[in-house]
Amino acid sequence: MALELYWVSGSPFSWRVMLTLEMKRLPYESKLLEASREEHKSPRYLKLNPRGKVPTLKDGDFVPYESLAIMAYLDRKHPEPSIFGTTAQETGQIWRAISETDSYLLEPAFKVVTRLYFGRGLEKTDEIQSAAATIRQELERINAALSHSVWIAGSQQISAADIALFPLVQTLLRAASKDAAKPLNLGVSPLNQRYPNIAMWVKRVEAIPGYEKTYPPHWKKLYSPY
Amino acid sequence: MALELYWVSGSPFSWRVMLTLEMKRLPYESKLLEASREEHKSPRYLKLNPRGKVPTLKDGDFVPYESLAIMAYLDRKHPEPSIFGTTAQETGQIWRAISETDSYLLEPAFKVVTRLYFGRGLEKTDEIQSAAATIRQELERINAALSHSVWIAGSQQISAADIALFPLVQTLLRAASKDAAKPLNLGVSPLNQRYPNIAMWVKRVEAIPGYEKTYPPHWKKLYSPY
Repeated sequence: MALELYWVSGSPFSWRVMLTLEMKRLPYESKLLEASREEHKSPRYLKLNPRGKVPTLKDGDFVPYESLAIMAYLDRKHPEPSIFGTTAQETGQIWRAISETDSYLLEPAFKVVTRLYFGRGLEKTDEIQSAAATIRQELERINAALSHSVWIAGSQQISAADIALFPLVQTLLRAASKDAAKPLNLGVSPLNQRYPNIAMWVKRVEAIPGYEKTYPPHWKKLYSPY
Repeated sequence: MALELYWVSGSPFSWRVMLTLEMKRLPYESKLLEASREEHKSPRYLKLNPRGKVPTLKDGDFVPYESLAIMAYLDRKHPEPSIFGTTAQETGQIWRAISETDSYLLEPAFKVVTRLYFGRGLEKTDEIQSAAATIRQELERINAALSHSVWIAGSQQISAADIALFPLVQTLLRAASKDAAKPLNLGVSPLNQRYPNIAMWVKRVEAIPGYEKTYPPHWKKLYSPY
């Protein structure tokens, strides 16, 4: 039975799983939900994922959700290529990088992104600037780490740490490209000037086979990052 | 070379790693840091963990930090008993439960706990009540899941999902036992009346060999949960 992936265009968590599926060359049936029509809150979808969040995978009778859980499940079921490391040290480094992304970058990034996307709360400049300062600090740390490493967690190959971070960086860049972001001086873009190692890393991730299939379809219409 | 664990008494993240070490019967040298003396911000410690957070493990030259990363590292290096599942489905369920703990329970729990511990911000009752409502919702979900399962993620044995959640539940209970918590009616305790399945699960976790060695030493002096 084919894998089914329920997802929303532009959801960084969905994007993580799509990148994982491409990395592992796993075919799947795309179940694109329209968030604007609340399809992720429909009774049918809530039976699969009671939180009404995306992504959700359906693999026969098994229906994992939460992006990292789906990634860990797929990696265990389809171990090649491994995305959680081939040695204990790699595994530790990869999970450390994932924890750092989710514990220290995610919340300030969402604080800034959701305001810029929806144009609400932009008058609370203190909160935005405080979040932006944390974002810059994390990006500086990542940029420094990438000065002596090709991938985020120092692994030999692209890993779950890269996959977990990448959609968030892209989402930040997209938000920072909005007109409303200009007066805020977030200090995120242009990426190749501010964080050149991250910019080169973005290019490396974009070069993985199948990448273009994971790119949020509604972004293509509205926005070009280049 | 012996493992070294840098930790702070009462840190739920430290407690996770201590439980993992006991589960796997791994001896280690305890490096207890005094947070009140800012020992986790000393230049010496910051060389091991630049964020000045606990826990940090030292295994020879390898120094992983972030609790989940240390747990994943130890499980990969010392696979028996496995705490991240023995099948792909178990792995998916365990990581889903960990993600749910860290994404939906952690932040509201910390919001309530830090205010009760330090006695600050208790006048912001709207914020506390909103956090408490989310906490109750998560505890109800967990209590329901434990009605047909011995362990949090439905696994055959205790897993990383139990280890990740347990210290947080204990921390919530301790905070809810404070005098300042009484007028707030958080709805967390008494656990055995409100969430009887969680109360029984707590007893099961407490029964693992070596548990008493992981109990925060300064809690023993100030507080008894029973």
